[in-house]
Amino acid sequence: MFSVTVRDHLMVAHSFTGEVFGPAQRLHGATFVVDATFRRAELDADNIVVDIGRAAQELRDVCAALGYRNLDDEPEFAGVNTSTEFLAKVIADRLAERIGAGAFGPGAGGLSGIAVTLHESHVAWAGYERGL
Amino acid sequence: MFSVTVRDHLMVAHSFTGEVFGPAQRLHGATFVVDATFRRAELDADNIVVDIGRAAQELRDVCAALGYRNLDDEPEFAGVNTSTEFLAKVIADRLAERIGAGAFGPGAGGLSGIAVTLHESHVAWAGYERGL
Amino acid sequence: MFSVTVRDHLMVAHSFTGEVFGPAQRLHGATFVVDATFRRAELDADNIVVDIGRAAQELRDVCAALGYRNLDDEPEFAGVNTSTEFLAKVIADRLAERIGAGAFGPGAGGLSGIAVTLHESHVAWAGYERGL
Amino acid sequence: MFSVTVRDHLMVAHSFTGEVFGPAQRLHGATFVVDATFRRAELDADNIVVDIGRAAQELRDVCAALGYRNLDDEPEFAGVNTSTEFLAKVIADRLAERIGAGAFGPGAGGLSGIAVTLHESHVAWAGYERGL
Amino acid sequence: MFSVTVRDHLMVAHSFTGEVFGPAQRLHGATFVVDATFRRAELDADNIVVDIGRAAQELRDVCAALGYRNLDDEPEFAGVNTSTEFLAKVIADRLAERIGAGAFGPGAGGLSGIAVTLHESHVAWAGYERGL
Amino acid sequence: MFSVTVRDHLMVAHSFTGEVFGPAQRLHGATFVVDATFRRAELDADNIVVDIGRAAQELRDVCAALGYRNLDDEPEFAGVNTSTEFLAKVIADRLAERIGAGAFGPGAGGLSGIAVTLHESHVAWAGYERGL
Repeated sequence: MFSVTVRDHLMVAHSFTGEVFGPAQRLHGATFVVDATFRRAELDADNIVVDIGRAAQELRDVCAALGYRNLDDEPEFAGVNTSTEFLAKVIADRLAERIGAGAFGPGAGGLSGIAVTLHESHVAWAGYERGL
Repeated sequence: MFSVTVRDHLMVAHSFTGEVFGPAQRLHGATFVVDATFRRAELDADNIVVDIGRAAQELRDVCAALGYRNLDDEPEFAGVNTSTEFLAKVIADRLAERIGAGAFGPGAGGLSGIAVTLHESHVAWAGYERGL
Repeated sequence: MFSVTVRDHLMVAHSFTGEVFGPAQRLHGATFVVDATFRRAELDADNIVVDIGRAAQELRDVCAALGYRNLDDEPEFAGVNTSTEFLAKVIADRLAERIGAGAFGPGAGGLSGIAVTLHESHVAWAGYERGL
Repeated sequence: MFSVTVRDHLMVAHSFTGEVFGPAQRLHGATFVVDATFRRAELDADNIVVDIGRAAQELRDVCAALGYRNLDDEPEFAGVNTSTEFLAKVIADRLAERIGAGAFGPGAGGLSGIAVTLHESHVAWAGYERGL
Repeated sequence: MFSVTVRDHLMVAHSFTGEVFGPAQRLHGATFVVDATFRRAELDADNIVVDIGRAAQELRDVCAALGYRNLDDEPEFAGVNTSTEFLAKVIADRLAERIGAGAFGPGAGGLSGIAVTLHESHVAWAGYERGL
Repeated sequence: MFSVTVRDHLMVAHSFTGEVFGPAQRLHGATFVVDATFRRAELDADNIVVDIGRAAQELRDVCAALGYRNLDDEPEFAGVNTSTEFLAKVIADRLAERIGAGAFGPGAGGLSGIAVTLHESHVAWAGYERGL
């Protein structure tokens, strides 16, 4: 099994609902350093999993659509705790949609899975992985 | 599959028995930077895998119980090579016990697995993963 | 010249005023991974710059007083762009006050300077250094 | 499941064929920081996955045989795009051969898999994993 | 004293002349992860050292002009050992020129110094710093 | 001013005397990841600060002479708290002696300073710098 990973980041404000979150119930923020991993069983005709430059550009677009915002004000996240692990799924699903729509090129049809990890600090990170 | 990881560390002395270990047969020491990963298929009612603050506290307690010691003098490790990979299992098992005992809260019943990685330097690390 | 550095972090929301900031004029957030460095010409009677445990605790207290907040709502920062470099100075000055107040112990009188670096992502950080 | 990982690096020149590679079609180069992970279900008689010193030496030898070269001039890679993911497989396969030839010692017969990750920058890496 | 640092990277081929370089006399390559630090005594009217976005863009441009090339074929480096430390100076000087030409905006007149570090691997890096 | 840095590590046991050290008064251990920086105003005839390979080898030798030991049993450290900052000075001084003895080659006469940083964990490090 082969994989390629690219890294980018986004910076957002948000708050959480639920006693378990303690002080994080207040409006605060986070930098999420995002690692997006693309997997496939065999390399494509160019001998790659996916072009790193194209994957980096797609990840940048997905991060830019989320970043520099207060997620509490985004209608799509109304009433949702935008936890690190939840946002990992949001990003993985958006990358999967783009692969399905052809944004990663025709060779990307061979991709079998995606894993996304969001680092919220030097001591905590969360992830989500799914098939394609 | 979702995951959350928290990082802490411990600092111990120990020695190894066996020619394969070369100079590490002498009493020496290590800082182990510990990454503990918690996995589950679906998020809980708060939209998380496990509360990062609680997970960090539990890992800190497990590290504190092992740290600032000479492991060669601990009865529980008598006659055992406390290798990095072995200690990864010790920490994973202790975290699993705490989850079973309810220390991570009732929502933690949905956790399906733990992975622990111990970084012994910038060029070597070891890990152990298990189900719950 | 000797130095000791400890690392902690804080997570805040804020926004910036000024066209130069582009999308960062919107309410967003950041994780700041904070490195606080303490300098002195000669080691103290215990052969250290400052006790790492005590320095870590003081930094944790300073970070906790700032973290999990929307800095735009804090009266002390009213009308101020809480840029990464500005916050580095805030933290350095607060640590200096604590040293002056004796929180780092009597041996800390020999400290000659502080440097604080705030990492806002894997590709950007800012710092401030000052004498004592 | 247990694992041990060791890190080393190599520095090579190469070029790629195919429009997808853009400017990387020109002769350029890369540092690959290489992480080699060895997996096994149970620890060996010394309570380890594999001796970290021996694994590090084997990885160093494999990296040295590839490094400080222009891969475009190596007969074994003639007409091949030596992408990061492809090179991860080359290194994994060479390590597997050495394990099979006994270079990792008799205890290494219990190893069940290898994973190799090549970091080409702080924002991109690729990997390959296989059984033994 | 305040500072802001941004990180980018470039990937090049090159070779060295001189017995001291051993195998690095052969054509090989490197990824250089580049940290560019900008220093000033007081913050500007926007409460910053320099806009991080603008600094990142300028560094990207400087890296792009050098990257994906065989430095041995570049006329400006003919007969020169393009060592890591030498390239740090090249990048620092180019950034200084851009600051002088106004690319960092009018507020950048207050900058007093630049430091550039090039990481060639996880175990080696080199730097150059200069005034403005 | 130019600089070159190389990284290596050592693993030792030790204990500290003094109430300030709390649990670190017990015999414990540490991995020290060591960064040794060499500085000079102008590059030498080969266009470098110092050969990275030679610097790495010298640092490895210095680390090997200290590593895999219980520092409490070393006569040279009898009655001394071998704190991280103290060990940074030990390593810097040993590297300076080797430079003086010609181990870094004749070009190393132009070196003007050394800085050594010892990382004891992901959240704490200490350093020492001196002239030559």
